[in-house]
Amino acid sequence: MPPKPKKSHPARKRTLRGRFSAPSAEPRLRIICETVGPGKAQLLELLSETCSISESARRMSMSYPRAWALVETLNRTFSRPLVESATGGSRGGGSRLTVTGKLVLQLYHRIHAHSLSATRSDLLKLHRLLKH
Amino acid sequence: MPPKPKKSHPARKRTLRGRFSAPSAEPRLRIICETVGPGKAQLLELLSETCSISESARRMSMSYPRAWALVETLNRTFSRPLVESATGGSRGGGSRLTVTGKLVLQLYHRIHAHSLSATRSDLLKLHRLLKH
Repeated sequence: MPPKPKKSHPARKRTLRGRFSAPSAEPRLRIICETVGPGKAQLLELLSETCSISESARRMSMSYPRAWALVETLNRTFSRPLVESATGGSRGGGSRLTVTGKLVLQLYHRIHAHSLSATRSDLLKLHRLLKH
Repeated sequence: MPPKPKKSHPARKRTLRGRFSAPSAEPRLRIICETVGPGKAQLLELLSETCSISESARRMSMSYPRAWALVETLNRTFSRPLVESATGGSRGGGSRLTVTGKLVLQLYHRIHAHSLSATRSDLLKLHRLLKH
């Protein structure tokens, strides 16, 4: 027997945010390698561009503590830190990718690109089965 | 300036459950094609085996309403239902994959397998950078 339908699903909306928006014109493939997914990859990308956690967080519409927690998680997950943060100084420090950080970001982009190109035909087949 | 560290992170634990466990011996790649990720793929797999949403939910340590909601989402996302549920009858109905459901599951498995084989060397590089 199906469970009684509920009028609203606040928990579901919160958990699966953004995933059930209208299908895009192109097939979408999200890749999570170990603990690095699209969110952390974008954060690393923005950090390499802005050298600022707060600016990167702002561009991702993410809170500063949340961005800081993601950076800390990345630094803890890998054997060497991916992001180095200088504290103090006249400009209040700054953050930059380490050599390992740049390598992880490069590997992530390559894994995503190679996955896409290796599975393009099946992704298109799946995409065509979606409700448009 | 880094935000003040908190003693506990209940929100983080809830959001990122399971992703920060100890690294496995093998590189891990999670794939989400459109809205189909490892969880929904496993649910479809179990449904094709058990023909029962409640039994599939039990094997995934998931609540029945949650499994039902995932099935409903899948059925809504694609132009044809992936799962057909019979109601009533002496055995209280049952659920089975439709032709589209079988095709989506097959495509998901193929996309995952081809992504893994196309990126194996980079995945291993990323894996070796993890803290072990």
